[in-house]
Amino acid sequence: MTTAAAPPTRADLVAADAADSLAQIRGAFALPDGVIYLDGNSLGALPRATAGRVADLIDRQWGQDLIRSWNTNDWIGAPARIGAKIAPLIGAMPHEVIVADSTSVNLFKLVAGALGLRPDRRVVLTEPGNFPTDLYILQGLARLLGERVELRVRPRAELASAIGEDVAVVVLTHVHYKSAERWDMRDITTRAHAAGAVTVWDLSHSAGAVELDLNGAGVDLALGCGYKYFNGGPGAPSFVFVAERWQSALVSPLSGWMGHAAPFDFGDDYRPAGDIRAQLCGTPGMLGLTALEAGVDQFAGLNMAAVEAKGVALGEAFISLVEARCSSSGLTLASPRAPTPRGSHVSFRHPDGYAIMQALIARGVIGDFRAPDILRFGFTPLYLRFTDVWDAVEILRDVLASGEYRQPRFAERAAVT
Amino acid sequence: MTTAAAPPTRADLVAADAADSLAQIRGAFALPDGVIYLDGNSLGALPRATAGRVADLIDRQWGQDLIRSWNTNDWIGAPARIGAKIAPLIGAMPHEVIVADSTSVNLFKLVAGALGLRPDRRVVLTEPGNFPTDLYILQGLARLLGERVELRVRPRAELASAIGEDVAVVVLTHVHYKSAERWDMRDITTRAHAAGAVTVWDLSHSAGAVELDLNGAGVDLALGCGYKYFNGGPGAPSFVFVAERWQSALVSPLSGWMGHAAPFDFGDDYRPAGDIRAQLCGTPGMLGLTALEAGVDQFAGLNMAAVEAKGVALGEAFISLVEARCSSSGLTLASPRAPTPRGSHVSFRHPDGYAIMQALIARGVIGDFRAPDILRFGFTPLYLRFTDVWDAVEILRDVLASGEYRQPRFAERAAVT
Repeated sequence: MTTAAAPPTRADLVAADAADSLAQIRGAFALPDGVIYLDGNSLGALPRATAGRVADLIDRQWGQDLIRSWNTNDWIGAPARIGAKIAPLIGAMPHEVIVADSTSVNLFKLVAGALGLRPDRRVVLTEPGNFPTDLYILQGLARLLGERVELRVRPRAELASAIGEDVAVVVLTHVHYKSAERWDMRDITTRAHAAGAVTVWDLSHSAGAVELDLNGAGVDLALGCGYKYFNGGPGAPSFVFVAERWQSALVSPLSGWMGHAAPFDFGDDYRPAGDIRAQLCGTPGMLGLTALEAGVDQFAGLNMAAVEAKGVALGEAFISLVEARCSSSGLTLASPRAPTPRGSHVSFRHPDGYAIMQALIARGVIGDFRAPDILRFGFTPLYLRFTDVWDAVEILRDVLASGEYRQPRFAERAAVT
Repeated sequence: MTTAAAPPTRADLVAADAADSLAQIRGAFALPDGVIYLDGNSLGALPRATAGRVADLIDRQWGQDLIRSWNTNDWIGAPARIGAKIAPLIGAMPHEVIVADSTSVNLFKLVAGALGLRPDRRVVLTEPGNFPTDLYILQGLARLLGERVELRVRPRAELASAIGEDVAVVVLTHVHYKSAERWDMRDITTRAHAAGAVTVWDLSHSAGAVELDLNGAGVDLALGCGYKYFNGGPGAPSFVFVAERWQSALVSPLSGWMGHAAPFDFGDDYRPAGDIRAQLCGTPGMLGLTALEAGVDQFAGLNMAAVEAKGVALGEAFISLVEARCSSSGLTLASPRAPTPRGSHVSFRHPDGYAIMQALIARGVIGDFRAPDILRFGFTPLYLRFTDVWDAVEILRDVLASGEYRQPRFAERAAVT
């Protein structure tokens, strides 16, 4: 790819598409005509396989086989089966990952569980501006546990040095949801371990987009999202990683029956499964799981290093083209310029960010807005083309140059922005 | 209907079907040929509308409209919209019910929240033999909170008198999952209030089957299941009821972003929605919600007293026919004989219960087994016929009389029993 100093030509991007080893995967997704979808980091696109898989779940497995499907169609095994498929995509062993609940619920489980691994410490360390639900969940846990927890929030630049001997758990999101800044997972985990702390990594903006090596980095606990880069559908269930060495010690506070060692014995006393299943809680939601499995299956056989490299290259082309072709627009890069510490999305700031994004969406370029002034563009490696980047920048340039985003209709805030 | 003393004839049951005001609803369900489905209390049958609703969600709303659907297809409003549809079926106001998470997760939320309403008390009172996940979740909460909670478990016969001045929360399942015994919700709630306690009712085996009047009974908090009588599909999301008077005071320990007063402001500090939305946690799972809405929509316009009356009559016919026609079989009624304190399922005990149920399922009569010796038969009022009861009892009689259940293949335990 070209560098930021020399923006690519359209011919360069046509050539990049022709050379793209992942190009054929785009055909596995049902993308609408007239849309350049740069929001797969918020809601992944629909795999063509999903509708048929869910229809089979509904018509045959549920409608015809009914309750028997827990055995005959292995519904009961779905959370661990899909977890095992996610494992190689994040550098985990198959028995270290399971699908359950939402990212918010799983964060609560893991941080409460991690506190139990460090009974003589009470500090939970995170950064301000972390994805809000992460902060909110930690605040809720701290409120519930009172004196047992001290929530310590330190800016990114000070965080590493704040990992002291009193820290029980370090909770960070690997790729930042706004800026796409990427923590050095191995470095922070190593520092945490040196101080005697446990790490919980939120992989929501990483998994399925960047190469991850949880075991290589020594990560203790992690969780991530099913509906972003894994294309599991709106509100898809989340996944949980528990390193093998913690599986017998980690206690979930949400000790529902599916995490029991023998749920169908219907005994009165909770006895946790001694493995990753202890992170299950209630009855698994099979519609969401089935769609998530179809999404995860799109990654079968892919090299995550190649996936990351394409996402980074798409983002690099976008940054250099925006800076070259929309130079007087008032857009300011809000993501790292260097690709290495960046995730698979790119953010720019603009005081009229909301209206500009609405005008872009009206023209078929779908990104999203994050208050107060961030335009966020996701570069999903599986179904975006390099020429999509060119076309998106051309439309962005038009929207800015024409001032069409100043139309009153683009200023009206929708419920979800 | 006939009484237990005089079992109905098949002609009586044909007449009962002809007179059944709910009979036409059966046509709205896709029931497999050759099956008498007596397990709708575990997994409700498939409404014919569901497949089309979910296909529209996937193909159009997700596939074509993508992220925009949170606004344009009102995904963001789905949890409250479906809650408002459930409300009249349980005697609640529309703004008192919302759909979120699993029953296990919701029980944790509500009991932790209820403890916060009684900061000077630490006893959580329940009964042994409650549905296991209820006990497990309470045990997990007690373990997490340590000295803050004393879990007190008292047998049903002693429970009312155990509601003392030190009790913070009474947690009971309205209809027992095994026996179908039904608590007097108004009586227990009144006693709890007299002692200064708060009530949390699990409606998993009641909602959609028996008439409920939560506000009439003065209930504080409740939750229930989407995948049993509401026919929301395997692992459908759960619903939560918070009486209006508690909505501003009740604090969910699972303070995820969807419960925030302004989730899309992306602020760092949690500020709960002042209404039922504060019980939301993570991003709602739209596949599960869409199927649940189709299931709940089957109840539109139905009178729940009529629904309950039919369920009770089906169960009464079953009991009297089993006792009359399988009299030397070794089956013992494990549910109340009188219909009023019974839910919509009927249980019998038999030492060979597992094998008998497997033999029945092989013959197309699908009920379920609950360890150690319970055969459980659900009588779902929306799609069962009185003649189904006759036919099921005839097959049960055959299975018992022939001894076919003694075949080795029926003794092999499946993963889910």
